[in-house]
Amino acid sequence: MIAEIVATGDEVLTGGIVDSNSSYIAEKLTEIGVAVGRHVSVGDNARILTQTIQEISQRADLAIVTGGLGPTEDDLSSEAAAAAAGVDTVLHPEAMRSLETFLNRLKRPVSATNRKQAYLPRGADCIVNPVGTAPGFSMSINQCRFFFLPGVPGEMKHMVTVAVLPEILRRIGERQAACMIRDICVFGPGESDVSEQLSGFTERFPEIKLGLQAVFPEIHVKLYLWGKYPDRLKNMADDAIAWVERRIGDHVFSFSGEGMEAVIGRLLKKRRFTVALAESCTGGLIAHRLTSVSGSSDYFNFSGVTYANAAKIEVLGVSAATLRDCGAVHENTAREMAQGARRAGNADLGLATTGIAGPTGGTKNKPVGTVCIGLAAPEAVKGYTFHYPFTDRGKNKAVFTMKALDLLRRELM
Amino acid sequence: MIAEIVATGDEVLTGGIVDSNSSYIAEKLTEIGVAVGRHVSVGDNARILTQTIQEISQRADLAIVTGGLGPTEDDLSSEAAAAAAGVDTVLHPEAMRSLETFLNRLKRPVSATNRKQAYLPRGADCIVNPVGTAPGFSMSINQCRFFFLPGVPGEMKHMVTVAVLPEILRRIGERQAACMIRDICVFGPGESDVSEQLSGFTERFPEIKLGLQAVFPEIHVKLYLWGKYPDRLKNMADDAIAWVERRIGDHVFSFSGEGMEAVIGRLLKKRRFTVALAESCTGGLIAHRLTSVSGSSDYFNFSGVTYANAAKIEVLGVSAATLRDCGAVHENTAREMAQGARRAGNADLGLATTGIAGPTGGTKNKPVGTVCIGLAAPEAVKGYTFHYPFTDRGKNKAVFTMKALDLLRRELM
Repeated sequence: MIAEIVATGDEVLTGGIVDSNSSYIAEKLTEIGVAVGRHVSVGDNARILTQTIQEISQRADLAIVTGGLGPTEDDLSSEAAAAAAGVDTVLHPEAMRSLETFLNRLKRPVSATNRKQAYLPRGADCIVNPVGTAPGFSMSINQCRFFFLPGVPGEMKHMVTVAVLPEILRRIGERQAACMIRDICVFGPGESDVSEQLSGFTERFPEIKLGLQAVFPEIHVKLYLWGKYPDRLKNMADDAIAWVERRIGDHVFSFSGEGMEAVIGRLLKKRRFTVALAESCTGGLIAHRLTSVSGSSDYFNFSGVTYANAAKIEVLGVSAATLRDCGAVHENTAREMAQGARRAGNADLGLATTGIAGPTGGTKNKPVGTVCIGLAAPEAVKGYTFHYPFTDRGKNKAVFTMKALDLLRRELM
Repeated sequence: MIAEIVATGDEVLTGGIVDSNSSYIAEKLTEIGVAVGRHVSVGDNARILTQTIQEISQRADLAIVTGGLGPTEDDLSSEAAAAAAGVDTVLHPEAMRSLETFLNRLKRPVSATNRKQAYLPRGADCIVNPVGTAPGFSMSINQCRFFFLPGVPGEMKHMVTVAVLPEILRRIGERQAACMIRDICVFGPGESDVSEQLSGFTERFPEIKLGLQAVFPEIHVKLYLWGKYPDRLKNMADDAIAWVERRIGDHVFSFSGEGMEAVIGRLLKKRRFTVALAESCTGGLIAHRLTSVSGSSDYFNFSGVTYANAAKIEVLGVSAATLRDCGAVHENTAREMAQGARRAGNADLGLATTGIAGPTGGTKNKPVGTVCIGLAAPEAVKGYTFHYPFTDRGKNKAVFTMKALDLLRRELM
């Protein structure tokens, strides 16, 4: 059972919008064990769309097409599907009812342009759209069952959930096995290092497909398992995860795709610790990430984003002498900032960053990419210096933030 | 001149990641007047990738393929390109130098797995990658010129800019008309409101293609103009932008796709003002956005991310009586926070947020989605309360942040 996914529309083709519909559909199909062969995006061009539908009808078993069902002249999916199947389009009573029901609810009349949306290829089955004007439809062309859906994400998702996936599940019946996906998150080693550490995986676990994905600055190790018996899949996944952990060690911060901020939230809650931050070069990003977790007010007290030296002195109590003698980017300054954050925020732990995110501001001894991190606990204050090779401000803020959070995670373990 | 864009990788195909590379490339090609015929995504499958390359080589003039150049066994682009062209792969000296130069800068050796990345199809031209390990390459297959680039967005974008677009421009010479894209950024009204305000645009400007794009919480109005004469395009674009501005008014914060943080940075610099923040419900996101702009240390002094009430009192000097009588989420508290930020950060302006981002913590009078914003200037302190309909924490943080920044922008104008 091979599926293909088609996104239509000039906006997708010219890069005006990013096509997130196809990845949504791909994920849903993968979850029910349907293999996706390709995604294709084509513009509002009847000839190319018809040709694409014909090609797919000869090589795939299932296809889901989004977009091109609107009321304008640019909306060509119904005509293209009809042309590919060698039929004409006809006013479909159920599609007309779908339109009328939706527009009645908004107290709006059915206009002539809307009426065009109820013309479907002869023989097609209507897929009712309760959340928009565009009815969808499904039909078989050659060996392939096509589903045509609107491109508006909310409408498409509704129709995928209530109509398309149930019909696909009926069609594949018991023949198909489910897919389990595990997402192991790594921070520290690069993609090629992780790849080398995991060499031999495929020989050891021939039934599991391994995928590596760089989501800067993290590496995600993804395990895909297909099979009929969830218990067996779970056991296999657990074995593989234990094997991966032995290879990569404590660079793994999550075995479930959970973000670093959520992992730290759990650790802080478990240890009943609170944390406060002092951020210079990370500019509030550590606070933003920690506070993205619902319930973070239980353990996150305060961040002092102190860009100006005056703020480092006044809010955090960093000594003017340290700033004068060592400079703002120094382990001693980071240590004092961490202590100051801990004090100002009445917290158990203080975490501080000061560095040079770039692209300008670097010197020979402290190039762009330098970060000093301070970590203050009740019993001790630690200071660290790291150099990253990046000149991009966004990358440096991201990697400095992850490094600081990872040091906090290790402190909490 | 027809181009196609190919994204490779199981992660894209199964929906594990959204393919934003293709839309980036599509936009760049559209800008230089190259028509994009299709986007295709295929998995890490040598047979399908080879077949896709062969198909494209017979119908397109240009193709850009991203992904599959990494060091692992899943990375198959070089082999597939070679197979499609009927050649073998060879160790390419320039690709080897690209790799060595990059790894030397990181003080890392060239491993055997990295070395695999320097094997390119015989006869291919190397595209040096100064920001990652994976060298790219270009080669002609049948009638089509192919460019193979890494899938890591930063590396891909760099190589598109410095190598691919210049080569394409050389190839198309003067034959092609350019495309001008204008990106008008709007905050406030919803997509359907903007759409209604712009009704009549197409009749007034029949040569300009209009696109609306919702990038939460912003709406982008995109104008696409094609033609041979840049001056004429510019005049048409200016007329259209003036027309759009008359309709949408000061909800437009940028006429050039510039982000809100950059717009505010320019306004602060121009007026020689500094700013300090006090963030409760936005949790550092306002500071993170303002400090994402290079040079922001000139005008950004401080943010106090004060989740705990104690921090609001101690760091910002909010009165305990206000917190007791009005609560943390109140205009009076927001006003005092803004004044406190201004004082603690020695800044000309103070901006503060306090609210309920959710998903829990709402009450009948202060439901999830409530935000109070304070804005302190030397002469006066203002307070505002807004209610948004969202229950999602991320959406609320994003919209609260934009609203606060938009109030600051209006104050500065």
